[in-house]
Formats: sequence, C-alpha cells, structure tokens
Amino acid sequence: MLNIALVGVGTVGGAVADILEKNRALITARAGKNIRVVKGVVKNATRQRGDLGFPLTTDYREVVEDPAIDVVVELMGGVDKAFEIVSAALRNKKAVVTANKAMLAYHRYELEELARDLPFMYEASVAGGIPIIRALRDGLCANHIESIRGVINGTCNYMLTRMFDKRVSFDQALKEAQGLGYAEADPTFDIGGFDAAHKLLILASLAYGIDAKPNDILIEGIGHLTDEDIAFAEEFGYTIKSLAIAKKVGSKVSLRVHPALITKKEVIAKVEGVMNGVAVVGDKVGETFYYGAGAGGEATASSVIADLIAIARGETTPMLGFSYGFDSQLTLAAKDDITSKYYIRILVEDVAGVLAQTAAVLAKNNISIETVLQRKKRVKKEWANLLLSTHIARETDLIGALHEIAELGFVKAPPAMIRIES
Amino acid sequence: MLNIALVGVGTVGGAVADILEKNRALITARAGKNIRVVKGVVKNATRQRGDLGFPLTTDYREVVEDPAIDVVVELMGGVDKAFEIVSAALRNKKAVVTANKAMLAYHRYELEELARDLPFMYEASVAGGIPIIRALRDGLCANHIESIRGVINGTCNYMLTRMFDKRVSFDQALKEAQGLGYAEADPTFDIGGFDAAHKLLILASLAYGIDAKPNDILIEGIGHLTDEDIAFAEEFGYTIKSLAIAKKVGSKVSLRVHPALITKKEVIAKVEGVMNGVAVVGDKVGETFYYGAGAGGEATASSVIADLIAIARGETTPMLGFSYGFDSQLTLAAKDDITSKYYIRILVEDVAGVLAQTAAVLAKNNISIETVLQRKKRVKKEWANLLLSTHIARETDLIGALHEIAELGFVKAPPAMIRIES
Repeated sequence: MLNIALVGVGTVGGAVADILEKNRALITARAGKNIRVVKGVVKNATRQRGDLGFPLTTDYREVVEDPAIDVVVELMGGVDKAFEIVSAALRNKKAVVTANKAMLAYHRYELEELARDLPFMYEASVAGGIPIIRALRDGLCANHIESIRGVINGTCNYMLTRMFDKRVSFDQALKEAQGLGYAEADPTFDIGGFDAAHKLLILASLAYGIDAKPNDILIEGIGHLTDEDIAFAEEFGYTIKSLAIAKKVGSKVSLRVHPALITKKEVIAKVEGVMNGVAVVGDKVGETFYYGAGAGGEATASSVIADLIAIARGETTPMLGFSYGFDSQLTLAAKDDITSKYYIRILVEDVAGVLAQTAAVLAKNNISIETVLQRKKRVKKEWANLLLSTHIARETDLIGALHEIAELGFVKAPPAMIRIES
Repeated sequence: MLNIALVGVGTVGGAVADILEKNRALITARAGKNIRVVKGVVKNATRQRGDLGFPLTTDYREVVEDPAIDVVVELMGGVDKAFEIVSAALRNKKAVVTANKAMLAYHRYELEELARDLPFMYEASVAGGIPIIRALRDGLCANHIESIRGVINGTCNYMLTRMFDKRVSFDQALKEAQGLGYAEADPTFDIGGFDAAHKLLILASLAYGIDAKPNDILIEGIGHLTDEDIAFAEEFGYTIKSLAIAKKVGSKVSLRVHPALITKKEVIAKVEGVMNGVAVVGDKVGETFYYGAGAGGEATASSVIADLIAIARGETTPMLGFSYGFDSQLTLAAKDDITSKYYIRILVEDVAGVLAQTAAVLAKNNISIETVLQRKKRVKKEWANLLLSTHIARETDLIGALHEIAELGFVKAPPAMIRIES
C-alpha cells in the first residue's frame, strides 16, 4: 500500500483521485501495490466537491506530519506556500510528487538538497501528459544534449495556429482562447512567455545541470506579432511558434523563450493548436521528438500517477538526473549573446531611397540581408512595411542597427524583430 | 563501479564502448558510478578490432560465470544462442541489457520468469534511440492503452518515402536502400514486416500484458505495392506507411503489421525516410507521439547506455512493466477479426458493366464504396485498373468479395487490397 495525500484538490487533483479509482486494477498491477488517497489539503474545506472518498483538511501539517502518509502530491500551484509545504514534507521524509513548474523554476535546487535520499518526481510540471522529464532524465541520459526546442505553452500555440490558419488577429485569437478556457482572464503569464520559461528552466537542469532563474534568461511574449509578420512568414515557407529554446555552444548554454520563424518542414513546426511538442537533439542519438497534450486535468494526472507508480516501484533516480553536487562546467550564456537569422519589420514612409539607406545601416553593423518584401499599408497608402530577413548575425549588432534605423527620417515606428530559428 | 560485459562487439557494441569513454564524465554523473566494460564476447577473437581497451573471449561462460561482472549486455542478435546466453546470465544473477528484438519476440515471458528479481532492460530493442519502452512502461503507465501505431522499420519507410516523393518503383527503391546500407542483401526480414512484428510484440506486452508470438499475428509486407497505389493514395490525400498496429477493442487486442493508407495530417504520416515514429493513445492522456532515429550504432547505443545508467541508479521496475504473473484479462483477436476501410485495386478488361458488376459483388458482401477511380493501363490500353475505397467493412466480408471478384470474366489478375487506417 502506498498512502498519498493530495495538496490541492482542483481539476488535476480531482482527476488524480478519479483515475486512481477507475484504472485501479491496472495501476496496482503496474505499481506492485495499491495507491490510496488518504487525505486532501484544501483552502476551503466546506466547498461542495461531491463524494471524494477521502477526508479533507485545511492544515497541511496534518499530512506532512502524519506517519501513515508516504507521498505528498502537491497540486496547488503558486510559489511560496507550495515551497513551504513541499519543504516541510521532505523534512518529514515524505516522497514528493508535484506538477508545480513555477515552484521548481525558483526552488528546484533547494528542493534537490532536501530530497537527497527521497523520491522527488515532477513529470507533470512540463508539457502535461508527455513524458519529457523521463525522456531527458532517463531515456537520453547517455547523451550530451545539444539543443532543446519546445512548443510548451498551449495558449500561445493555439493563438498562433489560429492567426496562421484563419488569419484572425492577435486580439481575436486571444478572445477565442479565453472563450475556450485556453487563456486566463489575465493572459500575461502565458502570452508573455513566463510559463514556458519556467518549464524551460526545469528541462535545462535535467539536460545541463544549470541552475538559472526566470530573471536570468531572455523571455519575450507574442504580443507584438502582426498580420504582416504572419504573411511574410507564410510567403517564405515559415511558420511562427513561441519556442522555448536551450542550446549548448561550447561551455555556454543559451536559454530563451521567444516567438520564432521556423521552416514548415521541421517536426516542431507541425505542433498545432493547444498541443505541445519538444524536440531534443543529443550528441549520439540525433534528433528525437515528443508530442502530446500539454495541459488538461486527465493528461496532467496521467503524469502525476506515473510518478506515483514509479515511487511504488522503488524509484531511486536523483531528482534532477545528476548525482547530487555534480558540476557540469557549463555556464549560462548572457541574454544578448545570441547569433541568429532575423526577420525585421520597419514601418516607413514610401519614398525613394528607403531600402538603400536601411541596407546601408545594416551593412555597417555587419548584417547582410537575405530577402526583402515591401508591403503598402492598406489604410495609409503613403506608408509601407519594409520586411527583411537577414543571414546569421550577432544579436548585439542587430539591436544596434535597429536603434540606428529607428532614427532615420522616413521610419515611422520602432522597428520590430523576430528571430528565425534554423 | 558497474562492471559490464559486451556479448557482441560489432557496430552497436563498438559504439557502446566508444560512448562510455567519450561521454564518461557525464555518464558517471548521471549513473552515480563509473560504468566499465571488463570483457567482450565475440565469435572470432582474432579479427582485427583496433584497441578496444578490454579483453575478448569466444566463450560466453567466462562472463556469465564471472562474479566480477554485474551486467551482461547482449548485442549479438539472433534467437537461440542469444537466449541461451541471456538465460545463463540471469541464472548467474547478472542484470541484463539487450537490443535483441527477435529473442524478445519469442522468449520474453521465459526471460521475465528468470529475471524476477533482476534488472532486465531492452530500450534499444524497439525504435533504436527513441525511449519508447520507457514511455509505455513508465511514462504512460496510468493509462489503459487504446492503440499503438508505429513506423518502426526504417527500411520500409525509406523505400515508401522514395516511392512517394520521387515516384521511383519498388525495385528501384529497394536497390537504393541496399546501396545506402538501409536494406540487407536479402531484405525479406524488413520488407516482409517481420522485424516490425518483433518490435510490436514487445510493445504489446508493455501495453497489454499480452503474450503473443510472431506466428499468432497478421504480418504483411510491402512487396505488392504498385505505382497505381501510390497515385491513388496521393490523389485522395493519403500516404502509405508500413504500420505496426496494436488496438484494444473491448477485451480483445488486435496486433498486426501491414502497409496502410493514412491521411497526411496524422502525425505518424509525417515520419519520413529511415526515421521511426510511434503514436500511442492512452485513455487518459490522449494521443502522444515519439520520434527519432530507429537504427544506427550510436542511436542504438544511446538506448543501451540509458539502460546501464538505470541499472547503476538502482532500477527496480519489473521487466515487462507489470508485476510478475499479472493477468490483464485481454486476449489476442483472431488474425482476420479486423474491421477497416479498404482500398482495392482490380485489373480489368475495359468493357461496359465492369463497375456495375464489381459494385454488385461488394454490395452483396455488405461492403459499400466510398470512392472510385479508373485508370487505363499505359501499355495495354484495352485493360484498366479499377481503384476503389470502401467504408468500414469486416475483413472476412472483404476477402470473400475479392475472391468472388477474381472469378468475374473481365478481371485479369487477383485483386489487391490495402487497409486504410483512420
């Protein structure tokens, strides 16, 4: 018997309890023992929840201090309080399962220290039902990971899919996502890239042993994308995805979340709607790719229960996949230490010499142009959008060039840039 | 220290030894201990192999009976001798890692019995570098698996990709595959579907706890596919893949390997060339998909070493993912107990009434037609190919109808059929 407590009995917690019942024979056969929810911790114990089959409490000490409980399953979300509860559970020698990416983004190394001789599992924290944590921690562990590229925020991907397939505007796409429950009333956390960044930091620890926090990395949302960007991408065989990217170059690891143009033939370009997908390149295995539901109560619960089964089976793998205290000798690259191809959008007055002067500024900053498109504005016909893509350039050079271009007399708004991931 | 012996020091064995050296610091950090090859078992110890860094023997007893060896890594292939060696290793309480799908297709349940208290790992046996065994055994273990559909034979997929993309003939595609080392001189094992069937049986044990042998299941190769089939598929938005399919319907599990038409929008349709991909649908997680290199020394070694790291970490999961002796209550469906949509190709004399008579036979057998195409033969202009697709039908009905159609006066060759997977 494995006795567990659910801290948080909402959509995911409810699904965990439900699936443990519905698939009990199968789960017991795979776990080697019965997994039983013995208590739930909630904020409000008087709220109606139907017959859960286990008692509720509002005091987490009742479970972390209960010698009958083997595993504390944290599904409440948030950072500080969750960290307090999970830390207390570990200090009381409980195994822990969590789906909480925000807590892990900030506190995973403190938790690793507390969990040195205890199972600590978090498959559900990244990409919902896709076993991507296991892929990195277990499946690809013979490899130096060269890169990870993930579509790991369903809200952004749903919106971008709609903007591409149906040419709806950003605002319209957001409204639809909110209507379908794919976006929150305040969508900043998703469309600003922060949710994906939290997940990326977890993957980066597994791949590289790198301890970075959200503030240390480049995080860019999708709010600045326009119809012109979509049209340009389409015309040149690209799609636009919000990508979480980890890349190793020598002893540096670049971690970043931003929208990117990618060619349609890449596997990651084919992830549509709210689905998630993660492409991982290992030095020995080459490219591998993992795809599935990134959210939803049952898909997330599928991963939570997989972790419980692992614990029941006798899980002994270190929390972050490396022996405690391992120094990978890798360091985080500076936020602006990026080389990439770029797409640039510049709103200009449609006069002679615009392209020549723009090209001159780019050339002076060591940036060479690959393609150019000029699109007249439909409403204000004396203005046009100058759309360019560049060959590989240094980001610091590009930013410098864009600042200079912004000062040119015919430029009507600060130029916009999207990286091209190739 | 984890001491291992390699039984078989060919492409994969050599890559294992090589990667253990090249990625030693990383692998040790992830395994928690050093993994060292202490001996290799080969057929011919006098063959030149360069400096391997460990001694060779031709007598497997030297490793299975050596108390200093912790893990026997079987990479020799073949069924009987490999089974003898692996069984001896288990009887001597060695952990086992193997890449040998043929041995597992026939002997996995006997091996499970011998391995009841020993780690027995075989990630490399299916889909090379893709951690699909872990996905089923660990990642999706909370789910009843509804279906598995795999492109898990690189030879077939390379040939079909060439036949689709470049319209080369089957014979030409085979010649190319042989030239590139993707197909053997005698390609029967791959293009006949047997290799994929071995892998499917392994996945079926993990998903369903089903003990089936190659002879128990439907195995159909790709040798009968023609240019007309490719053209028909293309015209109606399909591609053709050699699929390994497991499907649960009620308490029956259907296992089969055959070419199938699938719509191009499915993830599995996008697996091209020698790559492998496996789509798994769980009752809770929905569809997930796994993609990567299905063969090659380094990709396969990546999975072998992942297994070694798991053993070093203290692997305790039962070999087939279920507690020993579990009865899943699922039974294998009969080979012909299939309902599907079908594509039919009939070579006919191009005379009046051909379609009417053919349609009448199909209707009498409860088969309704979805689409029809008639293509004149280029060389023999008085003949034509009648190409049809059906709605869902029972396979026994379809086979009966095809036998009747073969007897019609205007039919010039036995009709051909390809299942449509939807």
